Amino acid sequence: MQELPLNKAFMLLEPGPVVLVTTASGGRNNIMTISWHMVMDFTPKFALLSGSWNYSFEALVKNRECVIAVPTVDISQKVVEIGGCSGSDTDKFKKFELTPLKAKSVEAPLIKECLANIECRVTDYIEKHNIFILDAVQAWIDSERKERRTIHANGDGTFVVDGRTISHRRLMLPKLPPGV
Amino acid sequence: MQELPLNKAFMLLEPGPVVLVTTASGGRNNIMTISWHMVMDFTPKFALLSGSWNYSFEALVKNRECVIAVPTVDISQKVVEIGGCSGSDTDKFKKFELTPLKAKSVEAPLIKECLANIECRVTDYIEKHNIFILDAVQAWIDSERKERRTIHANGDGTFVVDGRTISHRRLMLPKLPPGV
Repeated sequence: MQELPLNKAFMLLEPGPVVLVTTASGGRNNIMTISWHMVMDFTPKFALLSGSWNYSFEALVKNRECVIAVPTVDISQKVVEIGGCSGSDTDKFKKFELTPLKAKSVEAPLIKECLANIECRVTDYIEKHNIFILDAVQAWIDSERKERRTIHANGDGTFVVDGRTISHRRLMLPKLPPGV
Repeated sequence: MQELPLNKAFMLLEPGPVVLVTTASGGRNNIMTISWHMVMDFTPKFALLSGSWNYSFEALVKNRECVIAVPTVDISQKVVEIGGCSGSDTDKFKKFELTPLKAKSVEAPLIKECLANIECRVTDYIEKHNIFILDAVQAWIDSERKERRTIHANGDGTFVVDGRTISHRRLMLPKLPPGV
């Protein structure tokens, strides 16, 4: 994983891919699969929906940090299976043969098999709406990875894979954040 | 536009497409382009990030309703241009030759040229984080539309177009909401 400038990290979540969120609590790592997230600004700040129905919820509330890992289509089956079991009785890194890498600023691990990883701190939790507010503090990307297509959940068990990229960059130049 | 059962409306936003949000205020319609949104539950409820930097913000706060319209790749240039100008001095329906259709439950209009439209009520605004909480009340889809590929913003002026669809439905069946 190579360091990704923080001002580009919002670009990983802006397209709305399914992501994996890792936490660490009491020396145990966990992973959950999440589609319900959004960018909040370019620093970047993110919102994430989670509640006590997720085993990771307690670790998020207690340790106030996590890693958002961006998986690609080649591991889509694992991504779905990770969402289908609970960290309460499963060591998901072991079960799904994923490699935890030491993060720089948080205890939660990066996932080596993902395209990118964003280390985040929880800065707020809006209990009424189950929304976590996250500040990204460090971002990583696997620049050498060939497969870079992410997946987007349709909600019915099917997923849209990234297709071609089109550019309207010329039209948007006046509104892009600095350095992007 | 044909009626879409409300319990399937979350499937329109779950993949994270760029959407158009319409509002109506004082007899004037407006449209804004938004990528910063997320699903919150299957009823469905959505979160949307917007603040006073958007001209539509005042209408959202005042009238507490909007329509989320889902555009497809064939009108992607319009979608970008809509995001590049302000409703303060532009009638966007007129400028971009889009057709406002009367909604059933809200004053804000549907957009005929979009794949789908979701009528929403604002149920909360979290001022500290600029997050609107929306309840969908009615949904519509253009079942006869040929082009159904949505676009996903990368944040740098480029957009990923929907590619192929893969299925992990068998794995997810136990966790799918009823009727989906």
